[in-house]
Amino acid sequence: MSETPAPPIQLVPGNSLITKTPEEGRMLAIKMSRLIIKATQPDNAVRERLRGVYAEDAGMLIAIGQTVATEFATIAAANNYWR
Amino acid sequence: MSETPAPPIQLVPGNSLITKTPEEGRMLAIKMSRLIIKATQPDNAVRERLRGVYAEDAGMLIAIGQTVATEFATIAAANNYWR
Amino acid sequence: MSETPAPPIQLVPGNSLITKTPEEGRMLAIKMSRLIIKATQPDNAVRERLRGVYAEDAGMLIAIGQTVATEFATIAAANNYWR
Amino acid sequence: MSETPAPPIQLVPGNSLITKTPEEGRMLAIKMSRLIIKATQPDNAVRERLRGVYAEDAGMLIAIGQTVATEFATIAAANNYWR
Amino acid sequence: MSETPAPPIQLVPGNSLITKTPEEGRMLAIKMSRLIIKATQPDNAVRERLRGVYAEDAGMLIAIGQTVATEFATIAAANNYWR
Amino acid sequence: MSETPAPPIQLVPGNSLITKTPEEGRMLAIKMSRLIIKATQPDNAVRERLRGVYAEDAGMLIAIGQTVATEFATIAAANNYWR
Repeated sequence: MSETPAPPIQLVPGNSLITKTPEEGRMLAIKMSRLIIKATQPDNAVRERLRGVYAEDAGMLIAIGQTVATEFATIAAANNYWR
Repeated sequence: MSETPAPPIQLVPGNSLITKTPEEGRMLAIKMSRLIIKATQPDNAVRERLRGVYAEDAGMLIAIGQTVATEFATIAAANNYWR
Repeated sequence: MSETPAPPIQLVPGNSLITKTPEEGRMLAIKMSRLIIKATQPDNAVRERLRGVYAEDAGMLIAIGQTVATEFATIAAANNYWR
Repeated sequence: MSETPAPPIQLVPGNSLITKTPEEGRMLAIKMSRLIIKATQPDNAVRERLRGVYAEDAGMLIAIGQTVATEFATIAAANNYWR
Repeated sequence: MSETPAPPIQLVPGNSLITKTPEEGRMLAIKMSRLIIKATQPDNAVRERLRGVYAEDAGMLIAIGQTVATEFATIAAANNYWR
Repeated sequence: MSETPAPPIQLVPGNSLITKTPEEGRMLAIKMSRLIIKATQPDNAVRERLRGVYAEDAGMLIAIGQTVATEFATIAAANNYWR
C-alpha cells in the first residue's frame, strides 16, 4: 500500500482492448488480471508459490473468476460485444 | 499468479456472446465462469475434489452466484437484453 | 469446478428479463440468483441445510444482497429502469 | 438456497426507482438492500440479533457499503444521475 | 438487518453527484461510502474503535478501495467522465 | 469509519481520467486504487508493513486485482475504450 514506482512490465498486451473475437477477449481478460498481480508482486518465485495456494482453493478460484468477469465486461464493451 | 501459457481450452463456447434467449444467455454465463476456473486449474481431479468443497459451502455458492451475475450482465448487454 | 451437464432446471423464469414493475424486477432478481445456486447444488436437502447456515450469518446475508443487487442492475437496464 | 415462496413484503418502496434527489436515491438504495435481507431472513428477532453482529464488525460494514454502492449505481442511472 | 428509521444524517454532501473535477469526484466517493457506514453504525465511539481495526488490516483496506471504486464509477458517469 | 477531514493528498494524478493509451489507463487505475488506501491509512510505515502482508497473500492479491479492474472499467469508459 506504499506507492511503488510504475511497474516496468506491460499491463495491457498489445496496448489495446480490441480483439478479433470473444475468445481472444477472454484470453486478454485473463492476462490483464494476471499482470496486475505481477505488478503488485513482481517476485516470480513468490507468485509461483502462491499459485500452489490459490489453484487448490475453491474460494480463491471463484474470486479469480469474479475478477476476470469484471475485466471481460470492459473488454466486451470496448469491442461492442463483437456483435 | 505466474504467467502460464494461454490455455488450450475454449473459453467462450461458440466464440460468441449472442444467444437466442435469456435462458441460453444464463447457461452461457455459467459455462464461461466455469471455463475460467478450468483455465486456472486444468487438473480435472483437483477441480472434482474442489467441487465437493464449494457445493457444500453456503458462502462459496453465494460467491459463484455473484460471478455468474457479473458474466450475465455482459451477455445481456451484448444481446440488447433480448428486448 | 468440473463441467457438469447443462442443468435441466429453468434459469430465467418466463425466459425474459422484462417485468411490469420494479417490484417484479426485484423478485426476478431474487429468483434468478437462487436458481444459480440450485444449478450448482441441485440437491434439495443440501440446499435446505445450507439455508440454515446463511440465514443466520450476517456476512452471508450481506453477500446475498450484493448478488441480488448485481442481478437487479441487469434487469433494471433491460427494462429501461421502468421510467 | 431452497426456493421459498415469493416474499409478501414490498421490495421496492413506492415501486419506482425514480427519486427527486440524490439524497433520496441514496436512502432508497439503503432501504432496498435491507429489504433483500428481510426477504431472505424474515424473522425480525434473528435480524435484530444479527444487527448486533454486523454493526460492530468493520469488514461487514464495509461489505454493506459495497452493496449499497451497487444498488445506488442502478438508481442513479434510472434518474439520469439527477443532472 | 432490521429496518431502522431513515438516518437523519446527510448521505450525499451537497445533494448532487456533479463535481468540478475528477479529484473532487473522488473525494465525494470517499465521503459517500463513509456516510453509509455512519448511517448503519451511528455511534461515533464504535466507528472510531472500528477505524483502529480496518486501518491496520490489509484486506479491509482493499475492500474499502473496492467500495470507493464502485461509488466513483457512478459519480464519474454522472459527470460524463469530466471529458 | 469516523469522518476524517478530506485528505490533503492528490487522489487522481493529473486530475483527469483521460489517458493516451490503455497501458497508461491501467497504470492510472493502479495508482488511483493505491491512493484510496493512502487516504484511508496515511501512515507510510503502517502501509509499508501491510504491504508485506498482502504481497504474500494470494486472496488479497486477487482482491487487489478486483479493485483495479473496477477502477479500470471507469477509466476505459472515460476514454471511449481508446477505440
